[in-house]
Amino acid sequence: MEPDLDALFNPRTVAVVGVSTTNPFHPANIIYNKNYYGYDCNVYAINPRGGELERRRVYESLSELPEKADMVVVAVKAHIVPEVARQCAGAGVRSMVVISGGFAEMGAEGQALQDELAGICDEASITLVGPNCFGVYAPPAVDTFFLPPERTVLPGKGHIAVASQSGAFMVDQIMTNFHEAGLGLSVAVSMGNKAQVDEEALLVHFAQREDTTLMCFYIEGIDQGVRRFINSAHEITPHKPIIVFSGGKSERGKHAAKSHTAALAADHELVEGALRQSGILEAETESEMTSFAKILAFYPNRPMKLCNIAVISSSGGHGVIASDMATEAGLNLPEFTPERQQEIRRLLEPNIQEIAAVSNPVDLTGSAADQDFERVLDYLLSKEDIEAAIVLTLPYTPMMTSFVGTRLGQVVKQYDKPVVAYVPNLAKYGMVLEGFELNGIPVVHSIEEAIQMLKALRLLGIACQE
Amino acid sequence: MEPDLDALFNPRTVAVVGVSTTNPFHPANIIYNKNYYGYDCNVYAINPRGGELERRRVYESLSELPEKADMVVVAVKAHIVPEVARQCAGAGVRSMVVISGGFAEMGAEGQALQDELAGICDEASITLVGPNCFGVYAPPAVDTFFLPPERTVLPGKGHIAVASQSGAFMVDQIMTNFHEAGLGLSVAVSMGNKAQVDEEALLVHFAQREDTTLMCFYIEGIDQGVRRFINSAHEITPHKPIIVFSGGKSERGKHAAKSHTAALAADHELVEGALRQSGILEAETESEMTSFAKILAFYPNRPMKLCNIAVISSSGGHGVIASDMATEAGLNLPEFTPERQQEIRRLLEPNIQEIAAVSNPVDLTGSAADQDFERVLDYLLSKEDIEAAIVLTLPYTPMMTSFVGTRLGQVVKQYDKPVVAYVPNLAKYGMVLEGFELNGIPVVHSIEEAIQMLKALRLLGIACQE
Repeated sequence: MEPDLDALFNPRTVAVVGVSTTNPFHPANIIYNKNYYGYDCNVYAINPRGGELERRRVYESLSELPEKADMVVVAVKAHIVPEVARQCAGAGVRSMVVISGGFAEMGAEGQALQDELAGICDEASITLVGPNCFGVYAPPAVDTFFLPPERTVLPGKGHIAVASQSGAFMVDQIMTNFHEAGLGLSVAVSMGNKAQVDEEALLVHFAQREDTTLMCFYIEGIDQGVRRFINSAHEITPHKPIIVFSGGKSERGKHAAKSHTAALAADHELVEGALRQSGILEAETESEMTSFAKILAFYPNRPMKLCNIAVISSSGGHGVIASDMATEAGLNLPEFTPERQQEIRRLLEPNIQEIAAVSNPVDLTGSAADQDFERVLDYLLSKEDIEAAIVLTLPYTPMMTSFVGTRLGQVVKQYDKPVVAYVPNLAKYGMVLEGFELNGIPVVHSIEEAIQMLKALRLLGIACQE
Repeated sequence: MEPDLDALFNPRTVAVVGVSTTNPFHPANIIYNKNYYGYDCNVYAINPRGGELERRRVYESLSELPEKADMVVVAVKAHIVPEVARQCAGAGVRSMVVISGGFAEMGAEGQALQDELAGICDEASITLVGPNCFGVYAPPAVDTFFLPPERTVLPGKGHIAVASQSGAFMVDQIMTNFHEAGLGLSVAVSMGNKAQVDEEALLVHFAQREDTTLMCFYIEGIDQGVRRFINSAHEITPHKPIIVFSGGKSERGKHAAKSHTAALAADHELVEGALRQSGILEAETESEMTSFAKILAFYPNRPMKLCNIAVISSSGGHGVIASDMATEAGLNLPEFTPERQQEIRRLLEPNIQEIAAVSNPVDLTGSAADQDFERVLDYLLSKEDIEAAIVLTLPYTPMMTSFVGTRLGQVVKQYDKPVVAYVPNLAKYGMVLEGFELNGIPVVHSIEEAIQMLKALRLLGIACQE
């Protein structure tokens, strides 16, 4: 069956099964509390023994609730879960999120239990997430991630939908890193063992969501779901970019993935080839995932063709390092003709006209001012052979002001070309950073990330050709 | 001649030649001001036209100063510099820092000017840094880095000496990143065109400094100085580790390096081989340089032999990714025997005994508490085949407390084995981070950096064997 994904992201009424009246750290209690205080759904606590939780009623079963539950979140021992699912089927529940572990990741017995659970849900047309997962983060309606909200980081509302085979990867590497990068989420799903809802089902749903312009997936190994995901992606990538980061590439990693989410091992080179053929952008490291997402959030549709970039810096060393890294990433720094070099020199203020290096990378030296950056960027973006630029901004130099980002932002708005700025990662450079990002130029905190961002647009260009 | 390096780091009296009475942003003015207000040396301003600077006297020449200058910092147009050097020779000056550009990096004419300058200094036994450099950062005596101090970051006093062919790389990639990583410097030198003082001279000096346990160098290309540096390093690396990050590896990077510091191109594979044979640790990226320095600051002498590590995490996904990255970095995660797995399981609290994955990587799950980490780390460090460990700490999980780092620190103190902790990079996890670092465990903010750190100890092990 095609699971009804809408049933996951807009439940009006949610029941949490397994709430403890003695342990406030129980996952079910955390889910109950965070939804009671922080989300729009009506949330009810369920435990077969009944009782009270902070003077609020704990219901003994679904049938006692004052209203029908749209979604049921389950955090009880694995062998009880099929029975809960049968009760859900009887009560007309539309979606279930099974947090509990102890299923396919534990071997054959667990697999049988998981098959039983999936069978009940399929039969009753219940949309099932999990088991062995964090579930669904869908603000403002509901959030089943069973971590204390004061300990986690919530990215703002945005246009990126994410799904992850690892809940902790989602919370740590996606939600925390995206928050730090200033990126917002539409919805997020931790899929766990994927007994029913998998990458492919989520991909098809995300592709149709109007609030979503970009999708990120963390996958481990390859299985039927991932295979179907890759096939379906082919139709979607021309309209909405898909970023994948994949764990379990090495022998030891495969081994770990198996005990983690029962993931099947695969030769990573095959996976890589299949991803590329479907136009999916594969991030090679954790930080690439964030860099790829950020550049696509700022410049949704700028595939590079020639992969020619210009680098403008106030430091020769930074230019050298950026050149090395660009080469590694398949990006070119085209050499400038003597005429072009002369024209660049003419644009500079007298104090640096003699000392600046005006080839590519351009080194404006530590005596450069805002207007030097502005004029050189304007000139280079106007050239047909330059598709994108990196500005390496060092706020240490005395003539550069915090206003530089705002000035360069006006230049970028005149051209249809992506520009990335490097600003060191220190609180005191906040004013410099803000000037760039408020004016449409994404900021990174390492030369490596700047290169990663333009690499994403190179990969997008390759994807467009396939 | 062998330059006298002491003359650079402890000048009692410093004269700055080229101070402007009209432009407060002139490099000479910045150097004059920062030393006047922030350092121990007596500093004097010099300009042939004389005058006043904020009601303080600007001297017309060296001979007018009320006392002999130990060090002269020069920031005037290139063609005037040799004349200033002759005056220094006449006045018995011991060291010169030439900030000015316009020498070898500008072609044959500049090269001739540079040779003239070096000749004068050699003749008069003046220790010369530069030209085309930031010079010397040697707190509390002197600081010639001509950047406004409020714009830059100063790492605390520490035991790492650094030298860089790029001033901006020094300020940005070393001083800022080291400060963020909590690392301190003994002294720092931006060498520029290296007309006299070069990597090799600094290496020999750093090796003898009692306040220095570790050295970091940024080099571009390869020349006589770098060759002699690599030869001399052979004798030093068994006693003090040397980290090198090298720019100008790619064709475009070499091209940029040439116009930056007149660096000669070299086949990077040859450089790589030579560095390795001398026992030098080569960092491949900017972030590796900081990771290498940090692990060696915490564990000065722990070369790995087997390169066997254990990974302990509360997240399966993090364990999978760490396994992939460890493999890439040449580190092994040895498989645990069924007996060892059983023993680990016995150490766990009842709530996770069934659900934890007790192979390597160990996944304690999101329900793990401080004592689970503590007991498993203690057990694994006690095993002969495990040389080091990575603890992936996710402060999101409800049972882990901010005290975990302090507890694990006590375990590490019992063994002679390096342990690295991952803590996400958020201000609100400061308490968690502090617990680790105050108790001897370095913290990183990405899985990648944790792997980089142990890779440094693998490289150190290889260096010990050569």
